[in-house]
Amino acid sequence: MKLAVLGSTGSIGLQTLDVCRRLSPRPEVVVLAAHSNCELLTNQAREFGAKYVVLAEQKAWREAKKNLTYSDVLLGEEGLQQALAHAEPDVSVNAVWGAAGLKYSLSALRHSRRLALANKESLVAAGQLVMGEAREWGCEVFPVDSEQSAIFQAMHCGKHKEVRRVILTASGGPFLDWTPEQIASATPEDALKHPTWEMGRGITVDSATLMNKAFEVIETRWLFDLDPSQIEVVIHPESVVHSMVEFVDGSCVAQLNIPDMRIPIQYSLTYPERVRLDLKPLDFAELGSLTFQKPDTRRFRALMLAWQVLEAGGAAGAVLVAANQRTTAAFLEGKIGFDKICDISTKVLHTHNVVSNPTLDDILAAHDWAMAEADRWISREY
Amino acid sequence: MKLAVLGSTGSIGLQTLDVCRRLSPRPEVVVLAAHSNCELLTNQAREFGAKYVVLAEQKAWREAKKNLTYSDVLLGEEGLQQALAHAEPDVSVNAVWGAAGLKYSLSALRHSRRLALANKESLVAAGQLVMGEAREWGCEVFPVDSEQSAIFQAMHCGKHKEVRRVILTASGGPFLDWTPEQIASATPEDALKHPTWEMGRGITVDSATLMNKAFEVIETRWLFDLDPSQIEVVIHPESVVHSMVEFVDGSCVAQLNIPDMRIPIQYSLTYPERVRLDLKPLDFAELGSLTFQKPDTRRFRALMLAWQVLEAGGAAGAVLVAANQRTTAAFLEGKIGFDKICDISTKVLHTHNVVSNPTLDDILAAHDWAMAEADRWISREY
Repeated sequence: MKLAVLGSTGSIGLQTLDVCRRLSPRPEVVVLAAHSNCELLTNQAREFGAKYVVLAEQKAWREAKKNLTYSDVLLGEEGLQQALAHAEPDVSVNAVWGAAGLKYSLSALRHSRRLALANKESLVAAGQLVMGEAREWGCEVFPVDSEQSAIFQAMHCGKHKEVRRVILTASGGPFLDWTPEQIASATPEDALKHPTWEMGRGITVDSATLMNKAFEVIETRWLFDLDPSQIEVVIHPESVVHSMVEFVDGSCVAQLNIPDMRIPIQYSLTYPERVRLDLKPLDFAELGSLTFQKPDTRRFRALMLAWQVLEAGGAAGAVLVAANQRTTAAFLEGKIGFDKICDISTKVLHTHNVVSNPTLDDILAAHDWAMAEADRWISREY
Repeated sequence: MKLAVLGSTGSIGLQTLDVCRRLSPRPEVVVLAAHSNCELLTNQAREFGAKYVVLAEQKAWREAKKNLTYSDVLLGEEGLQQALAHAEPDVSVNAVWGAAGLKYSLSALRHSRRLALANKESLVAAGQLVMGEAREWGCEVFPVDSEQSAIFQAMHCGKHKEVRRVILTASGGPFLDWTPEQIASATPEDALKHPTWEMGRGITVDSATLMNKAFEVIETRWLFDLDPSQIEVVIHPESVVHSMVEFVDGSCVAQLNIPDMRIPIQYSLTYPERVRLDLKPLDFAELGSLTFQKPDTRRFRALMLAWQVLEAGGAAGAVLVAANQRTTAAFLEGKIGFDKICDISTKVLHTHNVVSNPTLDDILAAHDWAMAEADRWISREY
């Protein structure tokens, strides 16, 4: 299997390469791409003998060019296009962080048979565009996220038209049991205590606001071609049930595993095969109980933005991604309160003029507009 | 779809016909068979226009013959063979109670494309024989039981060779939290309080001893061609998760639904399609929590008999079925204590001489021997 790992120096990228080390036969890592971590990327390229190495940042690219003699070291978007076109990977894992991931997805789906998508923003910002392009280029869009992977697996138990609803589980984040007043005055330090997963700072705040779950609702709609009304969210603090699909006959199928991203990552590479992975098995007696509760959408208003975005259509997803990114950063910098992440994102979303069937340029323009608009609201706060 | 319902006047039979009433188009019920409930069977035959009606008891047969003018009313095993041979059902549901169900299964699989098996004893007493005959006659053996149905559904998420283990859930029965002393002195009344399902008396006692779960372990081994070591049991008092399959990559798939037998019954008829069934949907927030615990095999020793039977092979399953039937009846009649159900069944099982590759006659002989042997032990008790 020929593999491209885009965003190979980030958390999902590192775990993808760890999965590759354990697979036999080892996938042939043909493309490695990263933003600017030249040293790590160079080591990865050497270990896996990657033919193409792509960096987004010029200085890092120059340095990598000096260090790597056996790889083609390319720069930026154009370099990535070139690398993918030459390498023709079976699977491209897009583990790039943030809105920048959208362009990587669009490049990857033109030159790969499968796009294993860990970058949330691709579908949140441009679900219609990405899925349309994937169909056109004959590329399969495959989930890497544990929730989406769970849905994908559970979907095997029936036909698409037999799905009644999809129930996404959410850990609930660190403020699950906090009062509205406590949440309003939460500090970055509070938000960064995530109960189950080890993640980046931005994503951790997204899980405290439940914005990450709003994003997943939007992703689910596009990935599985569902009506937004078919998607529900339930709080499940243990993060063992990764999501569920209920069919029209009342039968519900859930996918569970210990919280370890290597399981869905490996599945996205090896599907339709499953390959032995020696992790601690689930011990239900040891777990004791799995609990569920209704999400409190008064305390976690960000969740509801998912359905608003889907109803609005157009580039509303890109607007939400941008507004959330700016407000989250501002919160982490101490510029705005925790509550303002959702407040300002909502205001920006409601100010946005919807364009139907947006092109990539429309989406990028909406994204940029929303960044500026969010910044304007943020600057009023301090 | 042409349907035969064997045991149509029992609980599963009635629910099968209820499912038929809701299905559109309605299955054509071509054969109805029952033991002796002539009045109910006659009404069913009229409602569904069944061409063939079979009774096991002569007196009931004579009466039905008088009452039913538009159906062929046939007697006993030979009558059933004839009815099935003429009707050629697409699906035969075997919902006959007890060891008598084995012969019904063997008849049904010769003349049906699918045997929907609710009768536990067929596979427990003669798993090897039944599955062998099914292969030979090209009949699919399909689970009706909620646990087996759950496994069947979850199996769709991977390949057979990718299954690491199957985890059967058990409600734990009414004595789940009782001490060994309390269990030893349990009365029939105590045992008949089953937490979740409404069932017959014998089956309810089986769920108090966990013998029903021992039977399901044996069924699972045969139905899904697993190694006995791949099968585990976990106590799950809420009976919402009906069973789980864990694959080699650590991914685990569970099937859940509200406790309503019509869900797995309908699935056994309509598979590979799922048909809308308007029951109360699962509300996870309302459920609150799903709990799991290790089965205590000191207090519930019957459970371990499953693996002993599978290791012994031959007709050991038929011996266990017979011994359990006699001891359960004796317990309900107040002749022996609750503990003696398992004690005597174990003794009978260990006294039995194993025959390898048993024929139907071997199995029936072992069954009869075990009945007599159990009676001998029972008579010592009082």
